[in-house]
Amino acid sequence: MRLRNVKNKQEIMDNAINLILNPKDYKGKWKEVFNNNNPIYIEIGMGKGDFIIEHAKRYPDINFIGIERFDSVIVRAIEKVPEEIPNLRLVRMDAKDIEEVFDKEISRIFLNFSDPWPKKRHHDRRLTSHIFLKKYDNLFVNGKEIVQKTDNRDLFEYSIVSLSTYGYKIEDISLDLHNSDYENIIMTEYEKKFVAKGNNIYYLVVKK
Amino acid sequence: MRLRNVKNKQEIMDNAINLILNPKDYKGKWKEVFNNNNPIYIEIGMGKGDFIIEHAKRYPDINFIGIERFDSVIVRAIEKVPEEIPNLRLVRMDAKDIEEVFDKEISRIFLNFSDPWPKKRHHDRRLTSHIFLKKYDNLFVNGKEIVQKTDNRDLFEYSIVSLSTYGYKIEDISLDLHNSDYENIIMTEYEKKFVAKGNNIYYLVVKK
Repeated sequence: MRLRNVKNKQEIMDNAINLILNPKDYKGKWKEVFNNNNPIYIEIGMGKGDFIIEHAKRYPDINFIGIERFDSVIVRAIEKVPEEIPNLRLVRMDAKDIEEVFDKEISRIFLNFSDPWPKKRHHDRRLTSHIFLKKYDNLFVNGKEIVQKTDNRDLFEYSIVSLSTYGYKIEDISLDLHNSDYENIIMTEYEKKFVAKGNNIYYLVVKK
Repeated sequence: MRLRNVKNKQEIMDNAINLILNPKDYKGKWKEVFNNNNPIYIEIGMGKGDFIIEHAKRYPDINFIGIERFDSVIVRAIEKVPEEIPNLRLVRMDAKDIEEVFDKEISRIFLNFSDPWPKKRHHDRRLTSHIFLKKYDNLFVNGKEIVQKTDNRDLFEYSIVSLSTYGYKIEDISLDLHNSDYENIIMTEYEKKFVAKGNNIYYLVVKK
Protein backbone atom coordinates (compact mmCIF):
# COMPACT_ATOMS: atom_id res chain seq x y z
CA MET A 1 0.00 0.00 0.00
CA ARG A 2 1.33 3.41 -0.98
CA LEU A 3 -0.27 6.65 0.11
CA ARG A 4 0.16 10.16 -1.18
CA ASN A 5 3.24 11.78 0.26
CA VAL A 6 2.97 12.92 3.86
CA LYS A 7 4.68 16.18 4.74
CA ASN A 8 7.15 16.23 7.60
CA LYS A 9 7.15 12.42 7.73
CA GLN A 10 10.81 12.36 8.69
CA GLU A 11 10.02 14.53 11.68
CA ILE A 12 7.09 12.29 12.64
CA MET A 13 9.30 9.20 12.44
CA ASP A 14 12.19 10.78 14.36
CA ASN A 15 9.85 11.54 17.24
CA ALA A 16 7.79 8.34 17.16
CA ILE A 17 7.95 6.81 20.62
CA ASN A 18 6.81 3.32 19.52
CA LEU A 19 8.99 3.18 16.39
CA ILE A 20 12.24 1.21 16.30
CA LEU A 21 14.62 3.02 13.93
CA ASN A 22 17.44 0.48 13.97
CA PRO A 23 15.67 -2.92 14.10
CA LYS A 24 18.70 -4.97 13.02
CA ASP A 25 20.39 -4.01 16.30
CA TYR A 26 17.79 -6.05 18.17
CA LYS A 27 18.12 -9.32 16.26
CA GLY A 28 17.86 -12.08 18.87
CA LYS A 29 17.31 -9.47 21.60
CA TRP A 30 13.71 -8.32 21.17
CA LYS A 31 12.75 -9.48 24.64
CA GLU A 32 15.08 -6.73 25.91
CA VAL A 33 13.03 -4.18 24.00
CA PHE A 34 9.87 -5.31 25.79
CA ASN A 35 11.68 -6.12 29.02
CA ASN A 36 9.76 -9.38 29.50
CA ASN A 37 9.50 -12.95 28.20
CA ASN A 38 6.01 -12.69 26.75
CA PRO A 39 5.43 -14.18 23.29
CA ILE A 40 6.06 -11.90 20.34
CA TYR A 41 3.63 -11.72 17.41
CA ILE A 42 4.50 -9.79 14.27
CA GLU A 43 2.36 -8.45 11.45
CA ILE A 44 4.15 -8.20 8.12
CA GLY A 45 2.56 -5.38 6.15
CA MET A 46 0.58 -3.66 8.87
CA GLY A 47 -0.61 -0.79 6.68
CA LYS A 48 -2.04 1.98 8.83
CA GLY A 49 -1.84 -0.22 11.91
CA ASP A 50 -5.43 -0.64 13.11
CA PHE A 51 -5.08 -4.40 13.45
CA ILE A 52 -1.82 -4.54 15.39
CA ILE A 53 -2.62 -1.54 17.60
CA GLU A 54 -5.96 -3.03 18.62
CA HIS A 55 -4.27 -6.37 19.33
CA ALA A 56 -1.71 -4.66 21.57
CA LYS A 57 -4.44 -2.92 23.53
CA ARG A 58 -6.60 -6.03 23.86
CA TYR A 59 -3.82 -8.52 24.73
CA PRO A 60 -1.34 -6.84 27.12
CA ASP A 61 0.45 -10.14 27.85
CA ILE A 62 1.60 -10.53 24.27
CA ASN A 63 4.14 -8.30 22.54
CA PHE A 64 3.30 -7.06 19.04
CA ILE A 65 5.54 -5.73 16.31
CA GLY A 66 4.01 -4.13 13.24
CA ILE A 67 6.15 -4.09 10.12
CA GLU A 68 5.53 -1.82 7.17
CA ARG A 69 7.61 -1.04 4.14
CA PHE A 70 6.49 2.44 3.21
CA ASP A 71 7.29 5.63 5.16
CA SER A 72 4.13 7.29 3.98
CA VAL A 73 2.03 4.42 5.39
CA ILE A 74 3.83 3.82 8.67
CA VAL A 75 3.46 7.48 9.68
CA ARG A 76 -0.31 6.94 9.65
CA ALA A 77 0.11 4.16 12.20
CA ILE A 78 2.53 6.25 14.24
CA GLU A 79 0.05 9.09 14.47
CA LYS A 80 -2.50 6.71 16.00
CA VAL A 81 -0.26 5.90 18.99
CA PRO A 82 1.31 9.16 20.23
CA GLU A 83 1.78 7.72 23.75
CA GLU A 84 3.99 4.74 24.45
CA ILE A 85 2.26 1.35 24.33
CA PRO A 86 4.59 -0.99 26.26
CA ASN A 87 3.75 -4.14 24.28
CA LEU A 88 3.78 -2.55 20.81
CA ARG A 89 6.61 -1.58 18.51
CA LEU A 90 6.54 -0.48 14.90
CA VAL A 91 9.30 -1.16 12.37
CA ARG A 92 9.79 0.25 8.89
CA MET A 93 11.49 -2.36 6.74
CA ASP A 94 11.11 -4.58 3.69
CA ALA A 95 9.88 -8.09 4.49
CA LYS A 96 12.62 -9.61 2.35
CA ASP A 97 15.17 -8.49 4.96
CA ILE A 98 13.28 -10.05 7.85
CA GLU A 99 15.96 -12.61 8.69
CA GLU A 100 18.31 -9.73 9.52
CA VAL A 101 15.91 -8.46 12.19
CA PHE A 102 14.63 -11.53 14.06
CA ASP A 103 16.24 -14.76 15.18
CA LYS A 104 14.25 -17.55 16.89
CA GLU A 105 12.05 -15.22 18.90
CA ILE A 106 8.68 -14.96 17.13
CA SER A 107 5.60 -17.03 18.06
CA ARG A 108 3.15 -15.98 15.38
CA ILE A 109 3.15 -14.13 12.06
CA PHE A 110 0.07 -12.28 10.84
CA LEU A 111 -0.27 -11.72 7.08
CA ASN A 112 -3.24 -9.48 6.38
CA PHE A 113 -4.33 -8.49 2.88
CA SER A 114 -0.83 -8.93 1.53
CA ASP A 115 -0.01 -7.78 -1.97
CA PRO A 116 -1.47 -10.50 -4.24
CA TRP A 117 1.19 -10.10 -6.97
CA PRO A 118 -1.26 -11.41 -9.57
CA LYS A 119 1.23 -12.12 -12.36
CA LYS A 120 2.61 -15.65 -12.35
CA ARG A 121 6.19 -14.43 -12.75
CA HIS A 122 5.83 -12.43 -9.52
CA HIS A 123 4.42 -15.24 -7.37
CA ASP A 124 7.74 -15.68 -5.56
CA ARG A 125 7.18 -12.22 -4.10
CA ARG A 126 4.01 -13.33 -2.35
CA LEU A 127 4.52 -13.44 1.41
CA THR A 128 3.40 -17.09 1.44
CA SER A 129 5.82 -18.27 -1.29
CA HIS A 130 8.31 -20.97 -0.33
CA ILE A 131 11.03 -18.29 -0.55
CA PHE A 132 9.40 -16.36 2.28
CA LEU A 133 8.38 -19.47 4.24
CA LYS A 134 12.05 -20.46 4.30
CA LYS A 135 12.95 -17.05 5.74
CA TYR A 136 10.23 -17.35 8.40
CA ASP A 137 11.64 -20.71 9.58
CA ASN A 138 14.49 -18.81 11.21
CA LEU A 139 12.25 -16.33 13.01
CA PHE A 140 10.17 -18.71 15.08
CA VAL A 141 11.15 -19.60 18.63
CA ASN A 142 9.28 -22.90 18.95
CA GLY A 143 6.18 -23.96 17.09
CA LYS A 144 5.57 -22.05 13.89
CA GLU A 145 2.22 -20.32 13.40
CA ILE A 146 0.98 -18.15 10.55
CA VAL A 147 -2.43 -16.47 10.44
CA GLN A 148 -3.59 -15.07 7.12
CA LYS A 149 -6.53 -12.96 6.03
CA THR A 150 -7.19 -11.83 2.49
CA ASP A 151 -10.02 -11.05 0.13
CA ASN A 152 -8.01 -12.27 -2.86
CA ARG A 153 -9.15 -15.72 -3.93
CA ASP A 154 -6.12 -16.47 -6.09
CA LEU A 155 -3.68 -15.50 -3.33
CA PHE A 156 -5.64 -17.59 -0.84
CA GLU A 157 -5.70 -20.72 -3.01
CA TYR A 158 -1.98 -20.28 -3.70
CA SER A 159 -1.23 -19.81 0.00
CA ILE A 160 -3.10 -22.97 1.02
CA VAL A 161 -1.09 -25.07 -1.43
CA SER A 162 2.20 -23.31 -0.68
CA LEU A 163 1.85 -23.59 3.11
CA SER A 164 0.59 -27.17 2.98
CA THR A 165 3.28 -28.47 0.63
CA TYR A 166 5.90 -26.68 2.76
CA GLY A 167 4.79 -28.77 5.75
CA TYR A 168 2.34 -26.53 7.59
CA LYS A 169 -0.87 -28.13 8.81
CA ILE A 170 -4.08 -26.18 8.35
CA GLU A 171 -5.62 -25.90 11.80
CA ASP A 172 -8.45 -23.53 10.99
CA ILE A 173 -9.98 -22.02 7.87
CA SER A 174 -12.94 -19.90 6.90
CA LEU A 175 -14.01 -19.07 3.37
CA ASP A 176 -16.24 -16.28 4.66
CA LEU A 177 -14.90 -15.07 7.99
CA HIS A 178 -17.62 -12.53 8.67
CA ASN A 179 -20.37 -15.09 8.03
CA SER A 180 -18.92 -17.65 10.42
CA ASP A 181 -18.97 -18.41 14.13
CA TYR A 182 -15.96 -16.19 14.87
CA GLU A 183 -16.57 -13.37 17.32
CA ASN A 184 -14.71 -10.21 18.29
CA ILE A 185 -12.79 -10.12 15.02
CA ILE A 186 -10.13 -7.41 14.96
CA MET A 187 -10.24 -5.84 11.52
CA THR A 188 -7.69 -4.05 9.38
CA GLU A 189 -8.57 -0.82 7.59
CA TYR A 190 -8.86 -2.70 4.30
CA GLU A 191 -11.03 -5.36 5.88
CA LYS A 192 -13.55 -2.80 7.17
CA LYS A 193 -13.95 -1.47 3.63
CA PHE A 194 -14.20 -4.93 2.06
CA VAL A 195 -16.74 -6.17 4.59
CA ALA A 196 -18.83 -3.02 4.10
CA LYS A 197 -18.89 -3.82 0.38
CA GLY A 198 -20.02 -7.38 1.14
CA ASN A 199 -16.78 -9.03 -0.03
CA ASN A 200 -15.77 -12.44 1.30
CA ILE A 201 -12.85 -12.45 3.69
CA TYR A 202 -10.76 -15.64 3.66
CA TYR A 203 -9.07 -16.72 6.87
CA LEU A 204 -6.40 -19.33 7.55
CA VAL A 205 -4.45 -20.56 10.59
CA VAL A 206 -1.50 -22.90 9.94
CA LYS A 207 1.02 -24.51 12.27
CA LYS A 208 4.21 -26.50 11.92
CA MET B 1 -28.90 -39.66 -2.05
CA ARG B 2 -32.14 -41.60 -1.91
CA LEU B 3 -34.52 -41.85 -4.82
CA ARG B 4 -38.10 -42.98 -4.99
CA ASN B 5 -38.36 -46.72 -5.11
CA VAL B 6 -37.51 -48.33 -8.43
CA LYS B 7 -39.64 -51.29 -9.49
CA ASN B 8 -37.85 -54.51 -10.37
CA LYS B 9 -34.56 -53.19 -9.00
CA GLN B 10 -33.55 -56.64 -7.82
CA GLU B 11 -33.95 -57.92 -11.33
CA ILE B 12 -31.92 -55.02 -12.72
CA MET B 13 -29.14 -55.69 -10.24
CA ASP B 14 -29.11 -59.43 -10.81
CA ASN B 15 -28.60 -58.88 -14.51
CA ALA B 16 -26.18 -55.94 -14.31
CA ILE B 17 -23.08 -56.86 -16.27
CA ASN B 18 -20.83 -54.21 -14.66
CA LEU B 19 -22.04 -54.80 -11.09
CA ILE B 20 -20.02 -56.81 -8.59
CA LEU B 21 -22.46 -58.55 -6.25
CA ASN B 22 -19.92 -60.05 -3.84
CA PRO B 23 -17.21 -57.36 -3.53
CA LYS B 24 -15.66 -58.78 -0.35
CA ASP B 25 -14.56 -61.82 -2.35
CA TYR B 26 -12.19 -59.61 -4.33
CA LYS B 27 -10.37 -57.96 -1.44
CA GLY B 28 -6.71 -57.75 -2.48
CA LYS B 29 -7.58 -59.30 -5.86
CA TRP B 30 -9.23 -56.50 -7.83
CA LYS B 31 -6.59 -56.61 -10.54
CA GLU B 32 -7.97 -60.07 -11.37
CA VAL B 33 -11.37 -58.51 -11.97
CA PHE B 34 -9.89 -56.14 -14.53
CA ASN B 35 -7.31 -58.63 -15.74
CA ASN B 36 -4.53 -56.02 -15.87
CA ASN B 37 -2.21 -53.99 -13.61
CA ASN B 38 -3.61 -50.56 -14.40
CA PRO B 39 -4.20 -48.18 -11.49
CA ILE B 40 -7.58 -48.41 -9.78
CA TYR B 41 -9.55 -45.27 -8.88
CA ILE B 42 -12.70 -45.48 -6.77
CA GLU B 43 -15.55 -43.05 -6.25
CA ILE B 44 -17.26 -43.37 -2.89
CA GLY B 45 -20.86 -42.26 -3.26
CA MET B 46 -21.16 -42.28 -7.05
CA GLY B 47 -24.86 -41.46 -7.10
CA LYS B 48 -26.29 -42.09 -10.56
CA GLY B 49 -22.83 -42.66 -11.94
CA ASP B 50 -22.31 -39.94 -14.58
CA PHE B 51 -18.90 -39.00 -13.18
CA ILE B 52 -17.37 -42.47 -12.92
CA ILE B 53 -18.88 -43.73 -16.19
CA GLU B 54 -17.51 -40.77 -18.11
CA HIS B 55 -14.10 -41.26 -16.49
CA ALA B 56 -14.06 -44.91 -17.51
CA LYS B 57 -14.86 -43.99 -21.12
CA ARG B 58 -12.33 -41.16 -21.26
CA TYR B 59 -9.43 -42.96 -19.54
CA PRO B 60 -9.30 -46.58 -20.74
CA ASP B 61 -5.90 -47.20 -19.11
CA ILE B 62 -7.29 -46.65 -15.62
CA ASN B 63 -9.74 -48.93 -13.85
CA PHE B 64 -12.70 -47.32 -12.10
CA ILE B 65 -14.95 -48.62 -9.36
CA GLY B 66 -18.08 -46.71 -8.43
CA ILE B 67 -19.45 -47.33 -4.95
CA GLU B 68 -22.98 -46.48 -3.91
CA ARG B 69 -24.95 -47.36 -0.81
CA PHE B 70 -28.52 -47.30 -2.04
CA ASP B 71 -30.11 -49.87 -4.34
CA SER B 72 -32.52 -47.33 -5.71
CA VAL B 73 -29.63 -45.08 -6.77
CA ILE B 74 -27.20 -47.67 -8.11
CA VAL B 75 -29.83 -49.05 -10.48
CA ARG B 76 -29.87 -45.66 -12.20
CA ALA B 77 -26.15 -46.00 -12.85
CA ILE B 78 -26.56 -49.62 -13.97
CA GLU B 79 -29.15 -48.62 -16.54
CA LYS B 80 -26.67 -46.20 -18.11
CA VAL B 81 -24.16 -48.95 -18.91
CA PRO B 82 -26.09 -51.95 -20.31
CA GLU B 83 -23.00 -53.18 -22.19
CA GLU B 84 -19.83 -54.25 -20.44
CA ILE B 85 -17.25 -51.52 -19.93
CA PRO B 86 -13.97 -53.40 -19.30
CA ASN B 87 -12.42 -50.78 -17.00
CA LEU B 88 -15.56 -50.04 -14.94
CA ARG B 89 -17.20 -51.90 -12.10
CA LEU B 90 -20.01 -50.81 -9.79
CA VAL B 91 -20.39 -51.91 -6.19
CA ARG B 92 -23.31 -51.50 -3.80
CA MET B 93 -21.98 -51.16 -0.29
CA ASP B 94 -21.75 -48.85 2.70
CA ALA B 95 -18.51 -46.85 2.81
CA LYS B 96 -17.99 -47.78 6.45
CA ASP B 97 -17.27 -51.36 5.35
CA ILE B 98 -14.69 -50.32 2.77
CA GLU B 99 -11.76 -52.00 4.50
CA GLU B 100 -13.47 -55.34 3.96
CA VAL B 101 -13.47 -54.80 0.19
CA PHE B 102 -10.06 -53.34 -0.70
CA ASP B 103 -6.55 -53.97 0.52
CA LYS B 104 -3.57 -51.94 -0.71
CA GLU B 105 -4.76 -51.71 -4.31
CA ILE B 106 -6.30 -48.26 -4.80
CA SER B 107 -4.47 -45.27 -6.29
CA ARG B 108 -7.05 -42.52 -5.92
CA ILE B 109 -10.33 -41.90 -4.10
CA PHE B 110 -12.93 -39.49 -5.48
CA LEU B 111 -15.37 -37.95 -3.01
CA ASN B 112 -18.01 -35.98 -4.87
CA PHE B 113 -20.79 -34.05 -3.16
CA SER B 114 -20.67 -36.33 -0.14
CA ASP B 115 -23.35 -36.08 2.52
CA PRO B 116 -22.40 -32.97 4.56
CA TRP B 117 -23.82 -34.31 7.85
CA PRO B 118 -24.36 -30.75 9.09
CA LYS B 119 -24.89 -31.51 12.77
CA LYS B 120 -21.72 -31.39 14.85
CA ARG B 121 -22.48 -34.71 16.54
CA HIS B 122 -22.56 -36.39 13.12
CA HIS B 123 -19.25 -35.02 11.83
CA ASP B 124 -17.54 -38.37 12.32
CA ARG B 125 -19.79 -39.72 9.60
CA ARG B 126 -18.34 -37.33 7.04
CA LEU B 127 -16.25 -39.17 4.47
CA THR B 128 -13.27 -36.91 5.29
CA SER B 129 -13.37 -37.47 9.07
CA HIS B 130 -10.29 -38.97 10.68
CA ILE B 131 -12.32 -42.15 11.22
CA PHE B 132 -12.71 -42.58 7.47
CA LEU B 133 -9.19 -41.35 6.65
CA LYS B 134 -7.86 -44.12 8.88
CA LYS B 135 -9.89 -46.68 6.92
CA TYR B 136 -8.60 -45.30 3.62
CA ASP B 137 -4.97 -45.74 4.74
CA ASN B 138 -5.38 -49.47 4.23
CA LEU B 139 -6.83 -49.17 0.73
CA PHE B 140 -4.01 -47.36 -1.01
CA VAL B 141 -1.31 -49.24 -2.85
CA ASN B 142 1.41 -46.59 -2.78
CA GLY B 143 0.99 -42.85 -2.56
CA LYS B 144 -2.37 -41.79 -1.17
CA GLU B 145 -4.51 -39.40 -3.20
CA ILE B 146 -7.98 -38.04 -2.51
CA VAL B 147 -9.88 -35.70 -4.84
CA GLN B 148 -12.92 -33.93 -3.45
CA LYS B 149 -15.66 -31.79 -4.95
CA THR B 150 -18.53 -30.26 -3.02
CA ASP B 151 -20.76 -27.22 -2.99
CA ASN B 152 -21.03 -27.33 0.81
CA ARG B 153 -18.78 -24.69 2.37
CA ASP B 154 -18.89 -26.15 5.86
CA LEU B 155 -17.98 -29.64 4.66
CA PHE B 156 -15.18 -28.19 2.54
CA GLU B 157 -13.65 -26.17 5.39
CA TYR B 158 -13.91 -29.21 7.65
CA SER B 159 -12.30 -31.45 5.04
CA ILE B 160 -9.33 -29.12 4.52
CA VAL B 161 -8.56 -29.10 8.25
CA SER B 162 -9.24 -32.82 8.69
CA LEU B 163 -7.10 -33.90 5.73
CA SER B 164 -4.29 -31.48 6.57
CA THR B 165 -4.07 -32.38 10.25
CA TYR B 166 -4.16 -36.08 9.27
CA GLY B 167 -0.98 -35.54 7.25
CA TYR B 168 -2.24 -35.00 3.71
CA LYS B 169 -0.66 -32.17 1.74
CA ILE B 170 -2.94 -29.98 -0.33
CA GLU B 171 -1.59 -30.12 -3.87
CA ASP B 172 -4.37 -28.25 -5.62
CA ILE B 173 -7.47 -26.29 -4.62
CA SER B 174 -10.13 -24.18 -6.24
CA LEU B 175 -12.79 -22.20 -4.42
CA ASP B 176 -14.77 -21.82 -7.64
CA LEU B 177 -13.91 -24.70 -9.94
CA HIS B 178 -16.04 -23.57 -12.86
CA ASN B 179 -14.56 -20.07 -12.78
CA SER B 180 -10.98 -21.30 -12.86
CA ASP B 181 -8.42 -22.43 -15.42
CA TYR B 182 -9.54 -26.06 -15.30
CA GLU B 183 -10.74 -27.52 -18.59
CA ASN B 184 -12.68 -30.62 -19.59
CA ILE B 185 -14.21 -31.00 -16.14
CA ILE B 186 -16.19 -34.20 -15.78
CA MET B 187 -19.32 -33.34 -13.81
CA THR B 188 -21.62 -35.33 -11.55
CA GLU B 189 -25.41 -35.05 -11.89
CA TYR B 190 -25.54 -32.85 -8.81
CA GLU B 191 -22.74 -30.66 -10.11
CA LYS B 192 -24.55 -29.97 -13.38
CA LYS B 193 -27.55 -28.72 -11.42
CA PHE B 194 -25.49 -26.65 -9.00
CA VAL B 195 -23.44 -25.04 -11.75
CA ALA B 196 -26.61 -24.20 -13.68
CA LYS B 197 -27.86 -22.42 -10.56
CA GLY B 198 -24.59 -20.48 -10.35
CA ASN B 199 -23.40 -22.17 -7.13
CA ASN B 200 -19.70 -22.32 -6.30
CA ILE B 201 -18.08 -25.72 -6.63
CA TYR B 202 -15.15 -26.32 -4.29
CA TYR B 203 -12.35 -28.61 -5.44
CA LEU B 204 -9.45 -30.18 -3.58
CA VAL B 205 -6.59 -32.56 -4.41
CA VAL B 206 -4.58 -33.96 -1.49
CA LYS B 207 -1.71 -36.42 -1.32
CA LYS B 208 0.19 -38.27 1.35
